[in-house]
Amino acid sequence: MSELEILERLRAQAALHRRSGVRLGIGDDCAVFGARAGEDLLITTDLLVEGVHFERGSHPAAALGRKALARALSDIAAMGGQARFCLVSLAAPKWADGRFLDGFFRGLLALARRFRVTLAGGDLTRSERLACDVVVCGAVERGGALRRSGARAGDVIYVSGVLGGSALGLRTRRGAAWRRHLEPEPRIGLGAFVRRRLGATAAIDLSDGLALDLHRLAKASALAASLDSPLPVFPGASLEEALHGGEDYELLFTAPPGVAVPSRHGGVPLSRIGVMRGGRPGALEFFGRPLAPRGWDPFVEIAKSGTVYSIPISRRAAAEDRR
Amino acid sequence: MSELEILERLRAQAALHRRSGVRLGIGDDCAVFGARAGEDLLITTDLLVEGVHFERGSHPAAALGRKALARALSDIAAMGGQARFCLVSLAAPKWADGRFLDGFFRGLLALARRFRVTLAGGDLTRSERLACDVVVCGAVERGGALRRSGARAGDVIYVSGVLGGSALGLRTRRGAAWRRHLEPEPRIGLGAFVRRRLGATAAIDLSDGLALDLHRLAKASALAASLDSPLPVFPGASLEEALHGGEDYELLFTAPPGVAVPSRHGGVPLSRIGVMRGGRPGALEFFGRPLAPRGWDPFVEIAKSGTVYSIPISRRAAAEDRR
Repeated sequence: MSELEILERLRAQAALHRRSGVRLGIGDDCAVFGARAGEDLLITTDLLVEGVHFERGSHPAAALGRKALARALSDIAAMGGQARFCLVSLAAPKWADGRFLDGFFRGLLALARRFRVTLAGGDLTRSERLACDVVVCGAVERGGALRRSGARAGDVIYVSGVLGGSALGLRTRRGAAWRRHLEPEPRIGLGAFVRRRLGATAAIDLSDGLALDLHRLAKASALAASLDSPLPVFPGASLEEALHGGEDYELLFTAPPGVAVPSRHGGVPLSRIGVMRGGRPGALEFFGRPLAPRGWDPFVEIAKSGTVYSIPISRRAAAEDRR
Repeated sequence: MSELEILERLRAQAALHRRSGVRLGIGDDCAVFGARAGEDLLITTDLLVEGVHFERGSHPAAALGRKALARALSDIAAMGGQARFCLVSLAAPKWADGRFLDGFFRGLLALARRFRVTLAGGDLTRSERLACDVVVCGAVERGGALRRSGARAGDVIYVSGVLGGSALGLRTRRGAAWRRHLEPEPRIGLGAFVRRRLGATAAIDLSDGLALDLHRLAKASALAASLDSPLPVFPGASLEEALHGGEDYELLFTAPPGVAVPSRHGGVPLSRIGVMRGGRPGALEFFGRPLAPRGWDPFVEIAKSGTVYSIPISRRAAAEDRR
């Protein structure tokens, strides 16, 4: 199958979902979108680069396409929004033939359908290594977006799911943990629930590891954070992987102390793991001891053959921490 | 300068332009944008890849940043919109150090300021070769976006500026033509003018060459097109470059025959070059003889060292033409 045929198939497959607001999709210079009255739009963009975020040999095409979209959807979830449409820019090497592109977009579109996201456009070009940038536009009630910066001292810290599975999967390439790494689940429904029903004060998705992402939320909220409860750890994952492993794409959120947070939502456990407190902005404690805001940072450790993932000391986070 | 310092500087420089509608810019999981009542949003995304769209050695960092944004702005111009905000995803190799990033974003932000475009977010990661994806969101009165598909038989075809300069510049690397290649000018003001004042029926920006882009417009409008007037050619460029050279980023538009189109707008010449007519959709004629819809297509000719640009036979256009 040629690229042209793929594009034509895409255009046919990329049906405009009713109520997505997309008035004109693939095929013109821009996509055209009509926002509804009384809503804010959420826009996020997420790069997936061969040799940095994945290796060609180990990631099936459909899983890769799915993951490229899932990562951006996770950002929409973190702000409590509903996803509306996406644009996919793909720089494809020669090895990414028609069969690969077909699988890639099949995986991406299957996830898009589940969340009623319209594929509204994108760009397609050649490159030596695959790079994919996915833009997702979502929506939320005007003024209602959950931000990183809204936590208050005394707010309780919660996390969804279990942590470290993705890092474990990357290490072992086996079983449920590897599936977790390949097919992360964007917590769109949960994000809307914690924003609307729980009155969450702040949220972030765990893309680079609990410690680093909690550090970011705390810093944005000008608070410190204490982890004082056992973490929900993926079976078989180490504490190190749960604290500093990336790509779990669970939600971390804060809620006022009086809020009754259920122990599960939609089958996903919600665990109380700590509390926000006054202190140096971004400073972390784990059972009373300082916790370094380490996590995954592509600017620290460029992927080497065989290890596209690593848990290095983050210069960025360390530098953020110094200020 | 480290990447972190660049990011922090960016955040400081990326002031939210008043009236851009951006409520939350760089620093959270998503940007937040409030559309105005009665407008449609235009969203476009444009990839710029090292070795395909540019070579590291010949493109200064600031020109590259400027061009990455200009190409996407040109898509907004083609639909007659005003630009509001952009997101920039950058996969940067090791050679792209702090100095490079500083120049890249300086060039990009200078153009953004001119068009009052807020840099609202993006993504930054590593890669082996530089790839940059720029998303621009613009706005237009609801239902008013200029599309490729609106031309009618008898409509007159116009083009802005002079053609072939970018291809000439890439061939000679000298003088005004090289500057034209390095620093294309998005025709935002002109796009709004032809949409609102001239009642243009269709438009497209010339990214891949007059013949290929006119073919696309004609095909979308289910019409043929005849070029029957001398083309405005960049001084020194060949007719081949004017017809099939890419990256001029001028506007091609159609207007009903009775419309009085001025010979210039904002200093840019507007030239009548032909007419839309019934016939095989997408078929082109140049002074009565068939014209092949050739232009630049990254899927046909991958850049080789020393020639990042080529004027190959376009398989894609040829295939489009067959249907």
